[in-house]
Amino acid sequence: MQFSKTIKTSDEILNRLFLICRSITGNGVRESLGIIKEYIPELSIQEFPTGKQVFDWTIPKEWNIRDAYVKDEAGNRIIDFKKCNVHVMSYSIPVDSRMSFEELNSHLYTLPKLPEAIPYRTSYYKENWGFCLSHNQYLQLDKTIQYEVKIDSSLTNGYLTLGDLILKGKTEEEILISTYCCHPSLANDNLSGVVLFTLLYNELKKFDLKYTYRFVILPETIGAITYLAQNQEAMKKVIGGFVLTTLGGPGKFGYKETFLGNHLIDRAVRLTFRDFEIDYIAYPFVPDGSDERQYSSPGFRIPVSTISKDKYYEYVYYHTSLDNLDFVKGEYVMQSLELYLSAIGKIEKNETYVNLNPNGELQLGKRGLYPETGGAINQRVSETVGVANGDSTVSLTFKSSYKDELDSILWFLFLADGTKDLISISEKTGIPVEQLAEIAEKFKLAGLIK
Amino acid sequence: MQFSKTIKTSDEILNRLFLICRSITGNGVRESLGIIKEYIPELSIQEFPTGKQVFDWTIPKEWNIRDAYVKDEAGNRIIDFKKCNVHVMSYSIPVDSRMSFEELNSHLYTLPKLPEAIPYRTSYYKENWGFCLSHNQYLQLDKTIQYEVKIDSSLTNGYLTLGDLILKGKTEEEILISTYCCHPSLANDNLSGVVLFTLLYNELKKFDLKYTYRFVILPETIGAITYLAQNQEAMKKVIGGFVLTTLGGPGKFGYKETFLGNHLIDRAVRLTFRDFEIDYIAYPFVPDGSDERQYSSPGFRIPVSTISKDKYYEYVYYHTSLDNLDFVKGEYVMQSLELYLSAIGKIEKNETYVNLNPNGELQLGKRGLYPETGGAINQRVSETVGVANGDSTVSLTFKSSYKDELDSILWFLFLADGTKDLISISEKTGIPVEQLAEIAEKFKLAGLIK
Amino acid sequence: MQFSKTIKTSDEILNRLFLICRSITGNGVRESLGIIKEYIPELSIQEFPTGKQVFDWTIPKEWNIRDAYVKDEAGNRIIDFKKCNVHVMSYSIPVDSRMSFEELNSHLYTLPKLPEAIPYRTSYYKENWGFCLSHNQYLQLDKTIQYEVKIDSSLTNGYLTLGDLILKGKTEEEILISTYCCHPSLANDNLSGVVLFTLLYNELKKFDLKYTYRFVILPETIGAITYLAQNQEAMKKVIGGFVLTTLGGPGKFGYKETFLGNHLIDRAVRLTFRDFEIDYIAYPFVPDGSDERQYSSPGFRIPVSTISKDKYYEYVYYHTSLDNLDFVKGEYVMQSLELYLSAIGKIEKNETYVNLNPNGELQLGKRGLYPETGGAINQRVSETVGVANGDSTVSLTFKSSYKDELDSILWFLFLADGTKDLISISEKTGIPVEQLAEIAEKFKLAGLIK
Repeated sequence: MQFSKTIKTSDEILNRLFLICRSITGNGVRESLGIIKEYIPELSIQEFPTGKQVFDWTIPKEWNIRDAYVKDEAGNRIIDFKKCNVHVMSYSIPVDSRMSFEELNSHLYTLPKLPEAIPYRTSYYKENWGFCLSHNQYLQLDKTIQYEVKIDSSLTNGYLTLGDLILKGKTEEEILISTYCCHPSLANDNLSGVVLFTLLYNELKKFDLKYTYRFVILPETIGAITYLAQNQEAMKKVIGGFVLTTLGGPGKFGYKETFLGNHLIDRAVRLTFRDFEIDYIAYPFVPDGSDERQYSSPGFRIPVSTISKDKYYEYVYYHTSLDNLDFVKGEYVMQSLELYLSAIGKIEKNETYVNLNPNGELQLGKRGLYPETGGAINQRVSETVGVANGDSTVSLTFKSSYKDELDSILWFLFLADGTKDLISISEKTGIPVEQLAEIAEKFKLAGLIK
Repeated sequence: MQFSKTIKTSDEILNRLFLICRSITGNGVRESLGIIKEYIPELSIQEFPTGKQVFDWTIPKEWNIRDAYVKDEAGNRIIDFKKCNVHVMSYSIPVDSRMSFEELNSHLYTLPKLPEAIPYRTSYYKENWGFCLSHNQYLQLDKTIQYEVKIDSSLTNGYLTLGDLILKGKTEEEILISTYCCHPSLANDNLSGVVLFTLLYNELKKFDLKYTYRFVILPETIGAITYLAQNQEAMKKVIGGFVLTTLGGPGKFGYKETFLGNHLIDRAVRLTFRDFEIDYIAYPFVPDGSDERQYSSPGFRIPVSTISKDKYYEYVYYHTSLDNLDFVKGEYVMQSLELYLSAIGKIEKNETYVNLNPNGELQLGKRGLYPETGGAINQRVSETVGVANGDSTVSLTFKSSYKDELDSILWFLFLADGTKDLISISEKTGIPVEQLAEIAEKFKLAGLIK
Repeated sequence: MQFSKTIKTSDEILNRLFLICRSITGNGVRESLGIIKEYIPELSIQEFPTGKQVFDWTIPKEWNIRDAYVKDEAGNRIIDFKKCNVHVMSYSIPVDSRMSFEELNSHLYTLPKLPEAIPYRTSYYKENWGFCLSHNQYLQLDKTIQYEVKIDSSLTNGYLTLGDLILKGKTEEEILISTYCCHPSLANDNLSGVVLFTLLYNELKKFDLKYTYRFVILPETIGAITYLAQNQEAMKKVIGGFVLTTLGGPGKFGYKETFLGNHLIDRAVRLTFRDFEIDYIAYPFVPDGSDERQYSSPGFRIPVSTISKDKYYEYVYYHTSLDNLDFVKGEYVMQSLELYLSAIGKIEKNETYVNLNPNGELQLGKRGLYPETGGAINQRVSETVGVANGDSTVSLTFKSSYKDELDSILWFLFLADGTKDLISISEKTGIPVEQLAEIAEKFKLAGLIK
């Protein structure tokens, strides 16, 4: 990766998408997917009509909004959708009326605990309308006047829009990469996921992959359910996956486990954190959260996890207007990208080898395979391997305390009996999968393992 | 349960039984079982003759005692069975003799470490006689005089007496409730077990039970062996059980595990302690103790456990005259009853359900199943559920930190795939079995699970 | 064991072998094995020719050395092989030359961190020569003079020498006892192993053994590989074993686990440390170390472990001239012997019994099997059992906190259902295998178990 270039791309996508008003249906999603398609021409965009039954759910009406405001008696737009699209409750029905403060008040939402922030609210499945505003502003509203309230929205038969693509690898087995694009101007939740989706695809397509990758971008919940209903048979090929969400904040890395807790994916991610020596917050699986709820439901049971940086629910600005581009930075997204690439790299490199000279040790010396500088007992080296590090100071350092090369070779040859894959060997020995894969490559070339 | 009424019953039984001189055979046991039968008319009382071979044992002679004393030269009863039946070693042969202090002394038993207490001693299988007295009294005995020693007892061919009954449930599988009634005036060991036996039966018979319950009351060891020998085939239906003993003291709750350590019974009891937030002493299984030794022996291997309150061996007054009605209270027995009922309730409610809409989440809202007040993330409620609490201040509070209702519903539907029972789900999620059973009931009525 | 006699033997063997210059081939090994054969007449000594292919390796030329020195211009032997055979790098090619300090210097090896010690160096598979000397001496060498350098060695077609023997037991299953004899005057590494090898054989042959024991003494690595290649089929009977090494120092006991980590051997050794109440250093298996690398390689997978006392790599004098007879003592070797005998004793006594009266408890009293002094609850006795202790103050004390006899009998009869061996019962209960075996013997004689 060229880090400075990628960070620039990251910031560019964040800026291009931020102001668009997205919801679970409508033109905001369409426009956003159109922009993503500029970066991922292979993305296939699909639409599913209002009223379509998808498992236990029905695709709702398409919602679009052109304008919305609350005006005071002087005609000033004191709450203005055009200034910040979070001001309007998502899926608000059209309104055009004059009303007292009292009447208006029952449709106002604030967050007294974070008085400068505009909260984000939705009402998808119950007809309603509302305005969200900062508690500070709310306290200054004049309770004695009449307000002009306008929401120029529409709820009509239309479509739910989503995108997917298949990146073919050597095997039919698939890894799912899913993100959601249904939130308005909220940067961490979930423009960060959308950006990583774009960058991850563009990195992975450079490689000759072992697994096939299924990339899916859709509105949360109803979109995932629609996608599963549409691809019920195809999803049987998916062995596991990731939901990309809330990974661009300044805070700590987190890891929400798959529902199995010890799937290959969990193990690869934990090795990644171990090898980068990153102290992260472990979140055991719970059936709330994002679309892992759908993918892992009893009918599918696909183990899906999330590497986060300021995870949803946990950061103070969650679901408020302060989850903006001051909070999320391209460089944080890049750090998350590195971890995702490392974890996926470990899964890609995870093979099971057989030492073809299993009786006693190999005589490394006569073959020139004895490491030149190796052999010092208990020597441990901090070094950069595996994930290519770039030109930026934000790059994470891969600094696993891995064994010296001779130790690593001895461990690899000792354990390579056809019953243990590289991830198991890495877990047992502390030697990074990347280093084991390098050794395997060298010994395979020498005809000593298969 | 009506607590005040039950405590009254509890105290009443304690008082009616306390003064009777019981042993492993004889009229004391008969009379005690007769009183129990007043509270449990269904109890079937059976007798097995002296000399009957029961596995490796033989039913001993029946022992009865009318009076016993040691008189000084002035004719004062200085040790008097009529004042406290613990004064006589159980199964003492008849004695009627004058003797020196020296001769008497070899038949006296005291407890120097607890000098005010009369110790409890037995000699069932070796012919012997003895008097037990407080060490304080012992020190004041006149060593220069002759004593008149009288034990008006008999050891004759007779019977071993025990009681049992079957409380039928929907399935043939049985849960064993066993207690022993062979100790004289000792309140915690084991009148407390006898009282709980009576109360537990009267509570359980109110319910439409899933399991069948086998209630057994008998003399310890020889009684249990006799019962097993007599019911060898029938015992194959018993999946597990409890020995009711030493559960009425003022001290800490304890739990002696089954020999398996992780049987359904162990798991249900541990969840009970968890949900009541009771800090208890865990006693791993050991093959001494009470009749679990017999029930769990290699030929039967029935997992049997004990919830105690001041467990045998552990409390200072164990096997002394101070284990009396100042030490044991009806309200302590009631607290143990509540725990037993809760644990049994969890076992009764433990079913395995299948979510009939396994693909993605159910849309709860359209069915009115979305909890009205639920949904606040990470909200935890302290509340009373499951075990109906009564009118008394001694009632334990069921205060599990269980999840809010939406979380509970999501977890239940996520895990209800036909492979996990409610006890497993409760262990994994922290949600009480009682709450899961309520959710299951609601979703079953709605036709959404089976 | 008669301790004082055995310690004397131990010291005697140490003294007889210490000064001999051994390497992986040559007369030093031959002479050493000849001396061992005086103590173990059954030892079979075998030779394998230079050039023989053994798996991935080739037996190297035989190395012999008669003399070696560095003389100053005055003709003084300032480095003298005859004073200490560690002075010469093992497998040095012949040298006879005058040279400057500069030229000599590139063949000198010192240990600046331990300046009074002569390091031990080898160059088996790359032709080279060298002298080792203390860093203190090195600093005083005159850099301005010419030196006369002589190594009167030879590298010729010859043989690799090793010894083995089979000590037959009741079963065909074998336990491997392996040690190496290829180091010159180094006492802990590995004369201590050679001495223990001798003593252990002479102890074990006194007993009627269950397992067959394969004793093997050979040069490290190439010797073990040669032996495995020669006995590939026979090694299938070996269920596990020990490599005897570095067990005679004054420091802490250590235990290097088998590659399985929880093999019967690991469990027996851990019980030994437990029962002796010895705090030891646990070394997880790693594929460097000694010949367990070969025995446990994928083609053989024999679980092999090591009980050490000052383990190789870990003690300061490792591979230096200070690993001498001031450091290693016969009494330390004796302590290691006791642990080895205890661990092997547990493996030998490890049987699975069936209680023939499985229904309820046995009535011990009527059979006179009720322990006379037993029965006090929770009484724990410190006592010496199992390993016969001798007449020496260096003898270790077997002081397991084992259960009183009644408890032990109850546990044994409870668990003896044909599914648990004595080692499992010992792990679960804390009762030493030796005590369980005594109980088993008593109950077997009484016809109560099989």
